Amino acid sequence: MKSAKDKATVLIEALPFIREFRGTTLVIKIGGAALEKLPLRERFAEDLILLSWVGIRVVVVHGGGQQVSKMLDRLGIEAKFIDGQRVTCERTLEVVEMVLGGSLNKEIVRLIASSGGKAVGITGKDGGLATAVRRPASESGDLGHVGDIVSIDTEVLEELLENFIPVVAPLATSVDGHTLNVNADPFAAALAVALGAKKFVLLSDVEGVKDREGKLIPSLSAAAARELISDKTISGGMIPKVLHALSAVDGGVSKVHIIDGRSEHALLLEIFTSEGVGTQIISN
Amino acid sequence: MKSAKDKATVLIEALPFIREFRGTTLVIKIGGAALEKLPLRERFAEDLILLSWVGIRVVVVHGGGQQVSKMLDRLGIEAKFIDGQRVTCERTLEVVEMVLGGSLNKEIVRLIASSGGKAVGITGKDGGLATAVRRPASESGDLGHVGDIVSIDTEVLEELLENFIPVVAPLATSVDGHTLNVNADPFAAALAVALGAKKFVLLSDVEGVKDREGKLIPSLSAAAARELISDKTISGGMIPKVLHALSAVDGGVSKVHIIDGRSEHALLLEIFTSEGVGTQIISN
Amino acid sequence: MKSAKDKATVLIEALPFIREFRGTTLVIKIGGAALEKLPLRERFAEDLILLSWVGIRVVVVHGGGQQVSKMLDRLGIEAKFIDGQRVTCERTLEVVEMVLGGSLNKEIVRLIASSGGKAVGITGKDGGLATAVRRPASESGDLGHVGDIVSIDTEVLEELLENFIPVVAPLATSVDGHTLNVNADPFAAALAVALGAKKFVLLSDVEGVKDREGKLIPSLSAAAARELISDKTISGGMIPKVLHALSAVDGGVSKVHIIDGRSEHALLLEIFTSEGVGTQIISN
Amino acid sequence: MKSAKDKATVLIEALPFIREFRGTTLVIKIGGAALEKLPLRERFAEDLILLSWVGIRVVVVHGGGQQVSKMLDRLGIEAKFIDGQRVTCERTLEVVEMVLGGSLNKEIVRLIASSGGKAVGITGKDGGLATAVRRPASESGDLGHVGDIVSIDTEVLEELLENFIPVVAPLATSVDGHTLNVNADPFAAALAVALGAKKFVLLSDVEGVKDREGKLIPSLSAAAARELISDKTISGGMIPKVLHALSAVDGGVSKVHIIDGRSEHALLLEIFTSEGVGTQIISN
Amino acid sequence: MKSAKDKATVLIEALPFIREFRGTTLVIKIGGAALEKLPLRERFAEDLILLSWVGIRVVVVHGGGQQVSKMLDRLGIEAKFIDGQRVTCERTLEVVEMVLGGSLNKEIVRLIASSGGKAVGITGKDGGLATAVRRPASESGDLGHVGDIVSIDTEVLEELLENFIPVVAPLATSVDGHTLNVNADPFAAALAVALGAKKFVLLSDVEGVKDREGKLIPSLSAAAARELISDKTISGGMIPKVLHALSAVDGGVSKVHIIDGRSEHALLLEIFTSEGVGTQIISN
Amino acid sequence: MKSAKDKATVLIEALPFIREFRGTTLVIKIGGAALEKLPLRERFAEDLILLSWVGIRVVVVHGGGQQVSKMLDRLGIEAKFIDGQRVTCERTLEVVEMVLGGSLNKEIVRLIASSGGKAVGITGKDGGLATAVRRPASESGDLGHVGDIVSIDTEVLEELLENFIPVVAPLATSVDGHTLNVNADPFAAALAVALGAKKFVLLSDVEGVKDREGKLIPSLSAAAARELISDKTISGGMIPKVLHALSAVDGGVSKVHIIDGRSEHALLLEIFTSEGVGTQIISN
Repeated sequence: MKSAKDKATVLIEALPFIREFRGTTLVIKIGGAALEKLPLRERFAEDLILLSWVGIRVVVVHGGGQQVSKMLDRLGIEAKFIDGQRVTCERTLEVVEMVLGGSLNKEIVRLIASSGGKAVGITGKDGGLATAVRRPASESGDLGHVGDIVSIDTEVLEELLENFIPVVAPLATSVDGHTLNVNADPFAAALAVALGAKKFVLLSDVEGVKDREGKLIPSLSAAAARELISDKTISGGMIPKVLHALSAVDGGVSKVHIIDGRSEHALLLEIFTSEGVGTQIISN
Repeated sequence: MKSAKDKATVLIEALPFIREFRGTTLVIKIGGAALEKLPLRERFAEDLILLSWVGIRVVVVHGGGQQVSKMLDRLGIEAKFIDGQRVTCERTLEVVEMVLGGSLNKEIVRLIASSGGKAVGITGKDGGLATAVRRPASESGDLGHVGDIVSIDTEVLEELLENFIPVVAPLATSVDGHTLNVNADPFAAALAVALGAKKFVLLSDVEGVKDREGKLIPSLSAAAARELISDKTISGGMIPKVLHALSAVDGGVSKVHIIDGRSEHALLLEIFTSEGVGTQIISN
Repeated sequence: MKSAKDKATVLIEALPFIREFRGTTLVIKIGGAALEKLPLRERFAEDLILLSWVGIRVVVVHGGGQQVSKMLDRLGIEAKFIDGQRVTCERTLEVVEMVLGGSLNKEIVRLIASSGGKAVGITGKDGGLATAVRRPASESGDLGHVGDIVSIDTEVLEELLENFIPVVAPLATSVDGHTLNVNADPFAAALAVALGAKKFVLLSDVEGVKDREGKLIPSLSAAAARELISDKTISGGMIPKVLHALSAVDGGVSKVHIIDGRSEHALLLEIFTSEGVGTQIISN
Repeated sequence: MKSAKDKATVLIEALPFIREFRGTTLVIKIGGAALEKLPLRERFAEDLILLSWVGIRVVVVHGGGQQVSKMLDRLGIEAKFIDGQRVTCERTLEVVEMVLGGSLNKEIVRLIASSGGKAVGITGKDGGLATAVRRPASESGDLGHVGDIVSIDTEVLEELLENFIPVVAPLATSVDGHTLNVNADPFAAALAVALGAKKFVLLSDVEGVKDREGKLIPSLSAAAARELISDKTISGGMIPKVLHALSAVDGGVSKVHIIDGRSEHALLLEIFTSEGVGTQIISN
Repeated sequence: MKSAKDKATVLIEALPFIREFRGTTLVIKIGGAALEKLPLRERFAEDLILLSWVGIRVVVVHGGGQQVSKMLDRLGIEAKFIDGQRVTCERTLEVVEMVLGGSLNKEIVRLIASSGGKAVGITGKDGGLATAVRRPASESGDLGHVGDIVSIDTEVLEELLENFIPVVAPLATSVDGHTLNVNADPFAAALAVALGAKKFVLLSDVEGVKDREGKLIPSLSAAAARELISDKTISGGMIPKVLHALSAVDGGVSKVHIIDGRSEHALLLEIFTSEGVGTQIISN
Repeated sequence: MKSAKDKATVLIEALPFIREFRGTTLVIKIGGAALEKLPLRERFAEDLILLSWVGIRVVVVHGGGQQVSKMLDRLGIEAKFIDGQRVTCERTLEVVEMVLGGSLNKEIVRLIASSGGKAVGITGKDGGLATAVRRPASESGDLGHVGDIVSIDTEVLEELLENFIPVVAPLATSVDGHTLNVNADPFAAALAVALGAKKFVLLSDVEGVKDREGKLIPSLSAAAARELISDKTISGGMIPKVLHALSAVDGGVSKVHIIDGRSEHALLLEIFTSEGVGTQIISN
């Protein structure tokens, strides 16, 4: 019966964490790459369900850059980028909407349903959730139908959260009624702020923020994070990720976690155990 | 001031119809072809909003066969049909889901938002809405991932109906958790029955049911409709349409209307005026 | 089918107005004279019902001076006035209460019911709605049981507004429990302010405010209206009407309209179209 | 301190009665004559308030025949009766509505307010409460605008009962939208049945049902009451009163009381003490 | 019928008091000695029920010092006191909890049930109601497991108050999860403040506060009460009682009454009549 | 990271069990002996909290025979038994009430609070929860104040279950208002039936039902259980325990479990894992 006792111990160890988080909102952003690399996608869905069943208000935001690029390729449309950001022409936007809102979004919904949960997939266009403005063309060029969030109306999420796990694709409507492609990280950060989330998790395909020696930094204050950016310890694609994390912290989210979606149940362990996973950024 | 008085008269003439339908549920199915041929898509959205603002619980189901075929073509996937029904292989299913759930669904949501309404687009996979079984292979061949609805759980629709117009793409989940492509007409009929709808409108690109002389039949009892099928007055693509209408009538829906989406504001006129539009099928 | 399309166009043109007003409160005051002169009283009831069915919280306040005078005459009681205000002796008060609370109030309720709506008629005495103080005798004489509103308790209206159109006769209770006759214009203005109404409509038997040339002024700022009173452009019975309108504007009501109840569906056109009807007074 | 103890004893003796009636509905009909003869009208209002404050759902229905006749006389309209029932011509109906709905109804509301309670006065025309059919002309003649209740929609009463004491004047609307004068006794009986009242009290200006010796009968089964009518022990105006009481008993009201409104606090004593007051009629 | 009228008069005299207190909260503390000396315990229960049935939110807090001492004696445990306060060792605490939470609390619940009311007995430990800190040892010695209230969480009381009379034994939980014995007077005062009570009644076995001549003082301002303590007019056990009363007044309770539980229905007379009972302390 | 993964696996394995039980009611009876022998009482409290936090409606019923006997001994009162049942004289009843309702009940509440949960302890006397009849004296003698449940009013439990874990001591009120001592097993079974519980767990200090070889029987149909009693495989104290289990099954509870409270987290493992613990009795 040793093993049974061990099981019970694990369950019980989750108690203080459940107590801390039940009733609070948790926004989880999972990137398209991370989604592809999930050891078992079902595991991710199980984590979400367990979190929601202990009373946490879970909202999932997903990206899907890789999948969009693949589909563009199949359709013979060239994928263009300026400074790492996708240029979204009319034809690309159609593909973005199909892949994010039609394929990936519903795939996550299906995964959650398969594991016994109840999810509803929407985009930022649904229920007037996300309003954005088109990014003005800069010297580097025009990104096309790419937008930056200017306001969030959480009504549809609040309603869905009563009985479902909302899964959100990062599209938005412009003030004049057009569709805009929004980067999933700032989209999720804006949702986290608007929902008054206690925690915002960026599930990525990297281990977290590393110092100059390449060693993972488990915890960072917002000030320290800014410092690491200005002294260029943080570089490349990690810079915008950390900046989006900081915008959530600035907006009142207590903790942002950048964790590695490739390790199984990373999300669950992050919330339910004291095991350090990835990097957390906290307000000073 | 003549014109103003006329305006008022029109508004007032709507009163008895509003009185009859406020608080009741109206399921509207619009086909992909009809959607393409809408004189002005905005007009359709306006109709939906007006219906919802006078207190009618409006649910929209849309098809999208033409749009799926176009995308299959762009991707170099052959569109196959058996007895007029799309054979849905794995790769086709992916396209169906992208086009219906990602493109068309969100386009209708955007149209409604542009005209000042609030819509939320989902598929039958969201919130466990629609469960289907895969159509068994017949002598004519195997339709692949095509399903027939076996149960509807209206919870997500009931919740959305409080503040939004739900727009639903006809996909379903199988009992073992796979996605199935469902014909939009029977999908909508099943929703109408499950929601206890008072009216079910099939917005199509034909004028309605015609007699042997090609003259539109404005009204048909269910028995008469069955008669017209067995004596082959009704033929071709109109047969399944009428059969789905009959299944709704059999399920308790008072009236089913087959109307022509190509004439502007057909929907509005059908509900708010005594003008005959298309064909209505009523329980005996 | 030209005519049907026209109908639809009219209905659809109402959309932006419905959007603006649904969920807001609209207080409509109709004078006794206007009520007599309504081309068809049913039209007025229809307007009220349509407004309420699109989600506007409609409250009706009515006067009835002519009808009271007629009844006084039948009873051989002399109708006396000081500065245009009715002197309300004990016997007159009894008649005022009977005619306003018993005849006219219930007649409006009946009209609304006949057109398919649901109304409940009350007076300011019901549910502790209106408390007034007796007007002190002045040099011109003693007006008797005439009061000025000092407080409004909207509880009964809020409750009735959930499912009914409240119709209110302008009577009030004094602090020491006596009945007081209140002028319908300031009574309605006080209700509009207490209910946080967005619009207050004075349905009268004149076209609106006119300039020195006798031309209707379609729109006036509160400041301009005050100017027109002090330079005596506005004179006679229009002075108190404009002053009551201004008291509503000062109390936070966005717009007050003085419109002509004699033209059919004036109310509907005022709310649902961009046609100018009568005079609107807006906060500066 | 003797007196204080006595007071407490009286209060406490009310406990079992409060327990029996709290949460139940009590319909009280007071006739116009009884209203005139109330020793102190304030006493009646106090009784109503106390009953409502201990949690009883109190509904008051009032008559007003005497007051109507007086007003008819003042207006020089002849009061006609056929078999004791008022013939209600167009002009009489106007007076009935003014006196019942305007004067008496609001006077009772005012009395309740003066004693600290909150009442709302309506008629059976308000909120679609009472629907009646016009009494067909008989051999004895045509009663004019006199109706018999065919249906009651309690919605407006249920809403008002949450926070107010509803006071109802016995007018009704016919199916084709006209006003009908209804006898207050059967009107109140119909309300009692529709509301599922536990008790129905007829507050009259007689002591109760008497036997052949003129002695008050404190309690009667429905069967016994019918017996007394058929053997003519009960005669004159008491016959319809008992018949209306029986119709309430037949409709599910447990007890109907015919009590004498002229004795002070008769109502309170009837509900809160074991003192026998008047005659009670109970289902067998 | 004289007697019946008298009864009615008494009931009606309660009206203004019911009006004043319905919907407000009343905290009643009854001491163990007073409970023993109640002329008839049922009378006390009846008072509570009547108060709750007229809409007052009644909360009962009870002491039980005498009963605890008796049980300690039976168990051969010495009852020790420092400055009149019970020293609560581990074994004493067990007895306190048994007697207060098990015997007396449930006896009061039973009394209320026997008279037809519905009560639920809890302690300050239930539902996280009362949190206390252990009283630090002073020069006079260590009181053991005795605590002072630091916070009240009214959630469980608010929930119970919807349908029941809560009866509370004065135990609390320390921040580190131990049980603490709390004096019933300050415990009840803390509840009264936390619940926003309008009145707090200390039902004791003395007549009230007396002046130097031994004459009962019917009413005292808070300032005057403080004066009487500093000039030693108030002395002995009355000092802490008045201090606890003052802490309630300081916390926002309008009136505190120190009344004599030994006189029958003292509570009822205090609330429902203008008879002076005991001493009231009011904010200045 | 091996260990972290293991933890996650354990948590995830609970998913299907949570899904099965969330929203359902679970009644847990823990005996006094089991309570004494709990390896760590905190563990039991943790189990209860975890069950409640995943959405199970947990109700705890406790016995306390050993603790009562100990206190009787300390008070010099002889503990008497007839056929294994405690004879409850007046003095014993007082002790039963003190120990069960005062000591043990509040100790369990305190344990739950210490582990972060929120519990409210009541007895069957509170809120009119349990009504019993006194057991008539038999040939074996008179058990005194011992009762058998005749009705359960779940109102107070339903209210507490919204936010708390109710902990219930098995006392009841007789119809004539006296306290009765009820055996905890049938008391808990009656609650389980009245609440429509899905599961009823008897946490005891034995391993479960054993066969003739002394081997634990993991699962039994109700019929098989009855068989084992009639063929005397089940004997001694296990007979009433199984009979009470059967009464719950007969009353509609799907499964009753007799499990061993002495093994740590037995309760948690029973609900959240597929490990067999003790004996389950299921309806046939």
